Order: sequence, then structure tokens, then C-alpha cells
Amino acid sequence: MMEVALGIDIGGTNTVFGCIDSEGNCLVSGSIPTQQHDDINKYLDDLFELVDVKLKEYGGVLNIIGVGIGAPNASYYTGTIENAPNLKWKGSVPLVELIKQRLDVPVIITNDANAAAMGEKVFGAAKDMNNFMVITLGTGLGSGIVVNGDLLYGHDGFAGEVGHMIVRKSGRECGCGRKGCLETYVSATGVKRSVYKLLARHLGDSELRDIPFSELTAKMVAEAAGRGDLVAHETFSYTAQMLGEVLANVVAVTSPKAIFLFGGLAKAGDILFEPVRETLEKNLMPIYKGKIQVLPSGIKDNAAVLGAAALIWNKK
Amino acid sequence: MMEVALGIDIGGTNTVFGCIDSEGNCLVSGSIPTQQHDDINKYLDDLFELVDVKLKEYGGVLNIIGVGIGAPNASYYTGTIENAPNLKWKGSVPLVELIKQRLDVPVIITNDANAAAMGEKVFGAAKDMNNFMVITLGTGLGSGIVVNGDLLYGHDGFAGEVGHMIVRKSGRECGCGRKGCLETYVSATGVKRSVYKLLARHLGDSELRDIPFSELTAKMVAEAAGRGDLVAHETFSYTAQMLGEVLANVVAVTSPKAIFLFGGLAKAGDILFEPVRETLEKNLMPIYKGKIQVLPSGIKDNAAVLGAAALIWNKK
Repeated sequence: MMEVALGIDIGGTNTVFGCIDSEGNCLVSGSIPTQQHDDINKYLDDLFELVDVKLKEYGGVLNIIGVGIGAPNASYYTGTIENAPNLKWKGSVPLVELIKQRLDVPVIITNDANAAAMGEKVFGAAKDMNNFMVITLGTGLGSGIVVNGDLLYGHDGFAGEVGHMIVRKSGRECGCGRKGCLETYVSATGVKRSVYKLLARHLGDSELRDIPFSELTAKMVAEAAGRGDLVAHETFSYTAQMLGEVLANVVAVTSPKAIFLFGGLAKAGDILFEPVRETLEKNLMPIYKGKIQVLPSGIKDNAAVLGAAALIWNKK
Repeated sequence: MMEVALGIDIGGTNTVFGCIDSEGNCLVSGSIPTQQHDDINKYLDDLFELVDVKLKEYGGVLNIIGVGIGAPNASYYTGTIENAPNLKWKGSVPLVELIKQRLDVPVIITNDANAAAMGEKVFGAAKDMNNFMVITLGTGLGSGIVVNGDLLYGHDGFAGEVGHMIVRKSGRECGCGRKGCLETYVSATGVKRSVYKLLARHLGDSELRDIPFSELTAKMVAEAAGRGDLVAHETFSYTAQMLGEVLANVVAVTSPKAIFLFGGLAKAGDILFEPVRETLEKNLMPIYKGKIQVLPSGIKDNAAVLGAAALIWNKK
């Protein structure tokens, strides 16, 4: 038998899983819709039925040594998903316990940014680092912070909410109920909001004037910037500068060796990375200057599933 | 023989030491001037000669199992003091190595805020906490952060510089060479600066108008506030609000169970603590609300020496 960790990424639309060996190879994989059942047990029936099918197809030679899960609003300490706004299962869902009833192995759950950080440490570009941070730039801004070689969970399991540091008093409305949180500026959604702010302020031409708010994506803004659109370009500068300034403050708390930018928005590349690096460096306290790298993820494919599986492999 | 840790607090004026047992009792203590010798070896000769004298006076029954040191600009990883602006010894001073040559036991050095945090954990009010933070409010603002039961050092040993988070872009000049750092507002010096800013802005009576900048102390401001002086009172509100806002952002990074306020300014009591608590709570992300305590230190006397000794006892 060959040892693998089962990595599960629970997204709002699909749940993707993979059996990952100690080298980060994905030997079998599959996915099911996340929201087909109101009953969490039926969802888990579907999921583990498919896992079994896939294991048999592979010849029955894989031995699952543990299950790692990345999920929204997941609590590492309690093993539960808590009131996730984008999932059907309401209240507190004891996912770890329910999975342990099906599979008698260690089960670890955490949010997707923490899983991404662990993926980077076990399989990615942070293999030799004990202090670093991953910023996930998707619809929101998540953060996974590794200190002394382990994830920083804090006393309640909810450390690492860099996206909810307030950067502008009385700033943009945030989904968390407050105003001015970093993720209202620095995220795919933040980029869209910044485009419309700039279109409102300036009179110059921009191809973005022809696109309604509800149809605009951060990718379209990045592409427009690549074609020389000034509004799109200024949007990325503004976004990156705000991120660089906040990261300089986070460095004063945790002093990481590297900061990885991860997720859809990070695919914009240099147009994002360069001004982030420049602003970070300019704003760092002298003792930190020249020491902190801003890097893309070292994981090419299956990042979410690899990150989930890394929760198990990191403990081996 | 009875086991003790030798705790040493190196201040700009005096170096204080104490032999601390595992319960936090200070069995022998003493102090020497810090700046009498340009040669670090002569300073250490004086220091250890006095330690020997005190040990003999106590009957020669104490066995030093380790030396913990709190010092400005101390690097935990390298065991050195690096370019401390307030000390005579310039460049990189290999203090741990020099002490090990005299005493063959574990020697740990760190900055005074980290020592204070460890003192709180081993002997103070954080005995049952694995995730908390100590803010030292003296001439500057220091911070010692404990996560997963250990001090947060970061990749280079310099994590925990909350006093140098930038809170006002283009704000007050800071000794670090930048502008708008938290400690230019929240510290004994910051309080003085705020008094003069308010005196410049407002016309109302204040007893503080009769005191020159160079003579004013934060203690005088606290006492004036106690007597109902409005400028003094507003100064403390302003200071506490700024601290509360920043702490809400730091909580989003490390999620501590408690935040201890420590040092001279913390002696102001409720006039500082109450508005800090109120502003922190108001600015916290919903998931953290009602969970985080703002507390005074649980250590009454010899805090600096106890903190230094705690570096050793924590490792036992």
C-alpha cells in the first residue's frame, strides 16, 4: 500500500478532492457539487462514495493516512464550519467529527488561506522557510501566516484576517459590517470598486467605461492595463500601493522572510508585484529593509487540494 | 543547592540583576551603572564580581541554571546587542558568547518587551495563556507577542515592532527615520507631543501651559487629567483611541486572548485603559468582539528582572 493524504477543498460551487503522496503528486482526484444537499450527511455520502470509486479505479493500492480540508469559515480548534455565508449548511457544522465517523484517521480543517500557506511550505516555494505569509487575492483577501514553522491560529483559531485590517477610517463598506477593511480595496472586488471610483473622478478615455459594474472582472482590468488603458493602470497602482503599505505594517508584527501573493488577482503579474514590492520597501522600518521577498506561489496546479493535503503531510 | 535563574536587565543608566527561583521569588539582587566602561569585558567583570559577592552573602547555596537578559536592540537569534543608540558599546556586541565564557549555562538575550511578555507568562497574569501580547509604554512603545506558547521572533528575530506600525501617513517624525509611527503618538514622549499639539490648537485654560516641553512628563499629564484639566484629559483620550484602533488591526493578525499594557504610561490606570478597551471593541471585526481582554500586568515588582529570568524558566 502507498500512503496518501486526502485533500478536500470545499468551495461555494464545487468540492474538489485529491489523494496526494508525500512528494505532492496528485494520484487520483474528483469533484462533486457542494450545494446539492441541505443535509451534510448526504453530501458526505456522495463525496466518500466517489472517493471509494476513484481509489478502486486506481487499483486499491492507496492508503489514506489523514484528511485535510480547506473550507470557508472553518475553525481549526473546534473542527467545525461556522455560519458560512456561501454554504447551505447553517449554524455550526461538526465536519471533522462527521468525517472521522467514516474514516478513522487524523482529520484537520482550516480556512483556504491557511491551507494555501501550508501547501507552500510542504510542496511549494516556502519549503525552507519557518516564517512567511501567504496573501490570497480572490473575491476577498485571505491570509495564512506561518511562524516558527506552524500556522498562526491565535487563541480562538481565527488569527490571520489581514483582509479585515482597517486601512481607511470611514472607508468602503465591507461585508463584515465595518468600513475601510483592506479587502474592500485589495481583492478582485476591490479592484472593480476602484475602477468605478476612478471613472467617476476622471474624464479621460477608458475602454472600461463600456462595461457595467456587474460584468466587470479583475482579469478584464488587468488585460486593459496591458493594452495601455490609463484607468486600468492607475487602478492596479492604487491597489498595489495600498497592499504594500499594509504589508509594511504586518511585517512590523510578524517579520516574515517572504510574502507570497496567491490567487486570481496575483495572476496579473508584474503590474501588481512591482508596485507592491516598491511600496513595501519604501514603507518598511529600516531594520526590515532589503530582507523581505514578495513572491508568486511555487505551486502550479491543484493548489487548493495540495494545500489541504499539506495539513496532513506537515504533521508527519 | 537551590536552582535559580539569573535575570539581567540592561538599561541605559543601570544594569539590575536578580536570582529568581521557579516561583518568581527574587532571592538576591544588585545593580551596577551600565555606562562606566567603554570595554564590555570590564563591565561584565564588575557585574559578575557583584553577582559572586551576593551569592556568597546568601550562603553559597544558589545554583544558577541559566542567564536571561533583557537589553535594547538585542537579537535573540545571534545573541548580540546591535548598535544600541543608548549604550556605549558600538557595533555588534556578542553578549551571549561573552557571558557563556564566564558561566557555562544556557544564556538567552532578547529585548525588554519580549522579556516582559515572558515574565507575564511564567510569573504574571498570563500563566494559562498561549496567545497574548504585552505592550510596553515607556519612552517608546515596545511589544512582546506570544503565539502557540512561545515568543514570536520572526525570521530575523525582530518581530513585534508594533510601535513602528505607521498609523498616520506623513505624521510625526520618528526616531527610526520615518514618519507617523505609532510610538510617536502612543508612548510617554507621544503624550507630551500630543499635549503641545492640543495647546497649540485650543485656547482654553490648562495648567500644562506653564510647563516647558523639556520638563513635562507623562505622569504630570496624568495627574493634571486627574485634577480635571481638559487638555490633559483630551490628550489621554486621543492617545488611547489611537492605541485601540491599532490594536484592533493587530488582533486581526495574531488574535490574542489578552493584551497587557505595561510600563510607566500604563500606571495612568483607567484614564488610559477604559478608552483603549472601548475603542478596541468598537473597531474589532465581529468574530473577535467580546473576546479580547485589555489588562494591567500581573507582576508587581522587579518586572524587568523577572521577565529576563522567565526566559530561562520558560524553557525548563
